[in-house]
Amino acid sequence: MAPLTLHEDPRSGNCYKIRLTAALLGVPLTTRSYDITKGETRTPEFLAQVNANGRIPVLQIGEGADARFLPESNAACWYLAHGSALIPAERFAQADMLRWMFFEQYNHEPNVATLRFWLSIMGEANLSPEQRALVGAKRAAGNAALALMDSHLAGHAFFCGDTPSLADIALFAYTHVAEEGGFRLGDYPHIQSWIARIQALSGFIPMI
Amino acid sequence: MAPLTLHEDPRSGNCYKIRLTAALLGVPLTTRSYDITKGETRTPEFLAQVNANGRIPVLQIGEGADARFLPESNAACWYLAHGSALIPAERFAQADMLRWMFFEQYNHEPNVATLRFWLSIMGEANLSPEQRALVGAKRAAGNAALALMDSHLAGHAFFCGDTPSLADIALFAYTHVAEEGGFRLGDYPHIQSWIARIQALSGFIPMI
Repeated sequence: MAPLTLHEDPRSGNCYKIRLTAALLGVPLTTRSYDITKGETRTPEFLAQVNANGRIPVLQIGEGADARFLPESNAACWYLAHGSALIPAERFAQADMLRWMFFEQYNHEPNVATLRFWLSIMGEANLSPEQRALVGAKRAAGNAALALMDSHLAGHAFFCGDTPSLADIALFAYTHVAEEGGFRLGDYPHIQSWIARIQALSGFIPMI
Repeated sequence: MAPLTLHEDPRSGNCYKIRLTAALLGVPLTTRSYDITKGETRTPEFLAQVNANGRIPVLQIGEGADARFLPESNAACWYLAHGSALIPAERFAQADMLRWMFFEQYNHEPNVATLRFWLSIMGEANLSPEQRALVGAKRAAGNAALALMDSHLAGHAFFCGDTPSLADIALFAYTHVAEEGGFRLGDYPHIQSWIARIQALSGFIPMI
């Protein structure tokens, strides 16, 4: 395989998803760090060479003139896990795994991850009035996402079937640090058991 | 194939994605309509039987006790297009298509689709103060998403390679009606040409 480079901020759960996928698969990955709070992913060089959308993570495949760049955390995980047991082969199961990954980006990340970023990384005192006004709605929507996950996990060991898939990795990244955003994981016992199952997987690496 | 039923609101671009995918593939689909503005997807029956997340679209596969339910528009499109030319088989191209579909749900839909819903379906006079305060930020973020698309389409006929894929269908749904949310498509000439290419595809159906 061509050499793989992850353009990342180590504090980002979206970047951790990709590192965790690579670790569970035993795939080597070089990392290059940026500080998103200092605008390091909005420089003209980054926008021209790595991602015109100015965001990390980006998975770089190959080097030099032949390098290809893949933004969006869940797409990068999909690339890494191609042909592995982390992507179910059966038609419905594969679509159902993507269903949880789209749920993660639409219902979970903008609430659970954003409140962690605002409260633990930016700091509450530095929020704008617009951000401050959104905290209540994001708290409610984040708890709704966690409740839906907890309800599903009441009857399932993992999100799709009896073995871990990319859906578990995508949802684990920000869920296991949700308390840094003010969420109470003690309210979600099935999520807590599932977190312990993920952490016990062979090859597991912690976020930081 | 088992009979397919789409639980939808016909005004929703997320639902249209699934109908358009089925039409382009020539797959028959039965539809069942709900009015989301009247809470018809939040009833106890809907939450228990169709989607515990209280949202449409949901693709139902099969009927009766064996029925399976697939929420999330892009996951439903993935199920329908399994094994077809709408999903590239090559590893990077497949991940790159998903990259645009995750971009659609994270950067495009919450801005371009939400402003259309607020301004054309709910009506500006009915917005809450919190919603009103977000219009400016959603306008800017929606225009950033459209500008990124326009820039990509300056050098490509479709989002992934020379033929249409699910990425085009996912992004077409709310882009082609973006003016209903107050966006000016005249500012994006490459998007306009791409819209015409999608509308000329064999099997194309309009949204309403």
